Amino acid sequence: MENIARQSVRLCPFMNKTASSLRNVKSLQQSSVSKMAQKCPFMGQAMQKAHLATAAASGAARAVGSASTSTGRGEAAQDMLMTDHATQESKFDYEGLFEHEVRKKRVDKSYRFFNNINRLAKEFPMAHRQEEQDKVTVWCSNDYLALSKNQQVVDVMKKTLDKYGAGAGGTRNIAGHNQHALRLEAEVAALHKKEGALVFSSCFVANDAVISLLGQKLKDLVIFSDELNHASMIVGIKHASTTKHIFKHNDLNHLEELLASYPRSTPKLIAFESVYSMSGSVADIGKICDLAEKYGALTFLDEVHAVGLYGPHGAGVAEHCDFEAHRAAGIASPDYTTVMDRVDMITGTLGKSFGTVGGYVAGSQRLIDWLRSYAPGFIFTTSLPPAVMAGAAEAIRFQRSHLELRQEQQRHTAYVKQGLADLDIPVIPNPSHIVPILIGNPDLARQASDILMDKHRIYVQAINFPTVARGTERLRITPTPGHTNDLSDILLDAVDDVFHTLQLPRVSDWERQGGLLGVGEADYECESNLWTQEQLQLTNDDLQPNVREPIIDQLEVSSGLRL
Amino acid sequence: MENIARQSVRLCPFMNKTASSLRNVKSLQQSSVSKMAQKCPFMGQAMQKAHLATAAASGAARAVGSASTSTGRGEAAQDMLMTDHATQESKFDYEGLFEHEVRKKRVDKSYRFFNNINRLAKEFPMAHRQEEQDKVTVWCSNDYLALSKNQQVVDVMKKTLDKYGAGAGGTRNIAGHNQHALRLEAEVAALHKKEGALVFSSCFVANDAVISLLGQKLKDLVIFSDELNHASMIVGIKHASTTKHIFKHNDLNHLEELLASYPRSTPKLIAFESVYSMSGSVADIGKICDLAEKYGALTFLDEVHAVGLYGPHGAGVAEHCDFEAHRAAGIASPDYTTVMDRVDMITGTLGKSFGTVGGYVAGSQRLIDWLRSYAPGFIFTTSLPPAVMAGAAEAIRFQRSHLELRQEQQRHTAYVKQGLADLDIPVIPNPSHIVPILIGNPDLARQASDILMDKHRIYVQAINFPTVARGTERLRITPTPGHTNDLSDILLDAVDDVFHTLQLPRVSDWERQGGLLGVGEADYECESNLWTQEQLQLTNDDLQPNVREPIIDQLEVSSGLRL
Repeated sequence: MENIARQSVRLCPFMNKTASSLRNVKSLQQSSVSKMAQKCPFMGQAMQKAHLATAAASGAARAVGSASTSTGRGEAAQDMLMTDHATQESKFDYEGLFEHEVRKKRVDKSYRFFNNINRLAKEFPMAHRQEEQDKVTVWCSNDYLALSKNQQVVDVMKKTLDKYGAGAGGTRNIAGHNQHALRLEAEVAALHKKEGALVFSSCFVANDAVISLLGQKLKDLVIFSDELNHASMIVGIKHASTTKHIFKHNDLNHLEELLASYPRSTPKLIAFESVYSMSGSVADIGKICDLAEKYGALTFLDEVHAVGLYGPHGAGVAEHCDFEAHRAAGIASPDYTTVMDRVDMITGTLGKSFGTVGGYVAGSQRLIDWLRSYAPGFIFTTSLPPAVMAGAAEAIRFQRSHLELRQEQQRHTAYVKQGLADLDIPVIPNPSHIVPILIGNPDLARQASDILMDKHRIYVQAINFPTVARGTERLRITPTPGHTNDLSDILLDAVDDVFHTLQLPRVSDWERQGGLLGVGEADYECESNLWTQEQLQLTNDDLQPNVREPIIDQLEVSSGLRL
Repeated sequence: MENIARQSVRLCPFMNKTASSLRNVKSLQQSSVSKMAQKCPFMGQAMQKAHLATAAASGAARAVGSASTSTGRGEAAQDMLMTDHATQESKFDYEGLFEHEVRKKRVDKSYRFFNNINRLAKEFPMAHRQEEQDKVTVWCSNDYLALSKNQQVVDVMKKTLDKYGAGAGGTRNIAGHNQHALRLEAEVAALHKKEGALVFSSCFVANDAVISLLGQKLKDLVIFSDELNHASMIVGIKHASTTKHIFKHNDLNHLEELLASYPRSTPKLIAFESVYSMSGSVADIGKICDLAEKYGALTFLDEVHAVGLYGPHGAGVAEHCDFEAHRAAGIASPDYTTVMDRVDMITGTLGKSFGTVGGYVAGSQRLIDWLRSYAPGFIFTTSLPPAVMAGAAEAIRFQRSHLELRQEQQRHTAYVKQGLADLDIPVIPNPSHIVPILIGNPDLARQASDILMDKHRIYVQAINFPTVARGTERLRITPTPGHTNDLSDILLDAVDDVFHTLQLPRVSDWERQGGLLGVGEADYECESNLWTQEQLQLTNDDLQPNVREPIIDQLEVSSGLRL
């Protein structure tokens, strides 16, 4: 009995918090017992078997599942006693647990179906599905600047493959450190105008590694985290095993209130993003830096969804804050302290705008050397392939002087947003490049995605829990320089058709319900777009010539990297 | 004062455990205070400044550093009081912490210097350093089968780059799932004869993600971990936040003792490796499976350093346990339950023998679907580039039918081990392909590596703490099919010269000291090599024809993956 009770405490949906005996079942509403029982791997399986098995077994199982009479519950308890007796020496049912957990996802509609999407470099933004002739237009990739198909990037990668082979062959410490790593880290440091940078397998790993190490080495650290932060930061904060506070999304008053409750000398970390990927909302980086300075906090800024897209050189929203100064200074530093200078740590990805894979952190040389020396997620893993690092460096270099990529992306975004507004289609308002169409229901979001794919040959993945909160399910559209107005017109017609077919709520419907996330909210104040009309008029020639700094040598001196 | 005390408790080398006031300093040996003070970011910095600053400041700082008189300590305390007053409202000194921690590494000689090594595909195993003409022979890479330079692998990658571009452009759920992922996971599942497989950014991520998720979902889980397990498993176990026991390396009696202290129904996980990378020791997988069965535990086997190298098809040591049955059955399953079948989860890397980058886990379809649905490190990260996945799949396929790669690797290993034995050079004895030359001192290991590089143009990285325990520092040599006997002869001469130059202890010296890790231990029983002479005589034709199974379709059915 104890064994069953112990397992149940964790697995049973109605006993998983505090119950130490099965008696707690009695305190539950009778009507909800049956529903809850279906979620239980013991009772749930018994209930399922009841539909298939012999009359006798079926009778017993139904009794477990039924809660229509108190007799039913009594029989259930009896059945569990018998099971306990029979399986006292049984091992834990691992496969049952896996199955049960996956079944829960199917029940609550958060089970994920992956689509086989093969994006075609020479027909961007087209992809083929399983069959090569079965082509669709991809409208939800994070290859924001289409650099994954950029010929210069691809050529550099092919040349590197030929010369240096497929893989790095070791960790950075053992045979996996090379000129490609040095150059890539120099490019990243130069992009963010920081002393150094460190490349990781992914930005998930970078965020996790940096934040968790800070917490582990600074036991008094207090972490202040925006409530919409990405899973990688949440995981890092969890692994930091230190005090944390979640502040309301982009709510600086709330953040300050929390910061002010600690002495200035207490080590603190403010962890936030510039562009929040699923809503498109944007942090006020400058004001967060003000607070960090006032209260003695480190700033950790995730620019994953902003690099390549903001700032004259694509360094992200932090660079965009001092657009004109950075534009005029080129890749040198402006002659005053910029917002980007004030951020202690900037993390970014090589897998979205920069078209390849991997992640990084940029910061002071001391921070970088410390991470390099202590972060297990950096130390004990194989380096990225030389070709990947060379391709990423080429992508960063290329986009830095190609303002027009960012501008095209912005123009296409504006076109789609305007078109959707004209159709009364609800888009969660934001000042960035993300186009989140609000659906508000997981099943309908999934159906909308299916109709777009099957009928219109347009791929937009439905975004459901846990990526977004339940009830705020959406279709997330990401235009790129390759998504021309012609393609947008086709998309707009298709989305309109889907809204028609599924009778999805339009802006006016949300208005009647009081609105959600800024959609149909009467007093909602929409922020102005990050890119101004003036900035959109600039040309590549308005950027300072892209002179390369000999930054590699500089990095070598203090960081234990040998050329 | 309180602020300083609070920070000191953590940072100060002599107060970092329990001290709540500075009075504890008094209980320390006077002679050690000065040395300890140098490690302190407050006192250490003051001491450093003393060498540079004005006479007055210098006087005060020296007093802080000096512990030769009790007056010195008194002045130190006074100085800290002043500092406290002046910085009461100062923010925490983050940069000081980073610098201090790195300085500790420099002091204990565990600071790492990375070597710029650019491995040349067409001149394997040569690499160039910073200058292209400055070439060295690489003897420490984990590109065990030289597949990173395999023409078929490189060609597939280049073709994939041309057709599908540089990056995947999204997570597996959003635009990053494709035929390359499906095929790679099908290859991996087929290799290990499991129902399914899941690919991660790296095997570090795979190990961390799988073990931590198991712990998080199974609060009662008890983890039993080999004491020499890789950092990625240790991190995963830490993140699992559940009960853990470390068993002595490969000590099955100790493991059983620990297992037996729990009821059979308690969920358990035994986490271990097949080949331990730094010592070359090998686990008895079959016996661990016996124990797992007896005590109702899941088995988690890391085959990172074994895939490609053991078993007729390169599936690792688990496959090697039933070599003949697997050889005869080809890639189908033998008609009895093999050791590989009995292991619940096998993780492996694509970055070593398989020449690219990434990691994976193979197991039951339910396990895989569960991981796919719940592991944040899988869900929230960009997929590997199509070219990387295609290259890895090609490498797995290629090596599966190329027994001669494994055999050549073994022959070259045997040649090097015999040559070193003839020179009385101490190699930690093991039955695998790793050649760990025992040095036993971090500084000497580093110097040995430097002489090999600078004088002999041979690159063998010194392996120091934390990768191996202090006092067991070593040079780790990894022969490949490309390391011919001619190259080995050059290596042997060079190592002999280094041992001569640095007067490093030879086997006979270790014998006089009673031996270490099996080197020079009188009663040490050396295990016989995993590959038998008979197995080394087989040819590729002795393998069953490499018929491809239509395994992708099979995988699709239950896992929510859409073709």
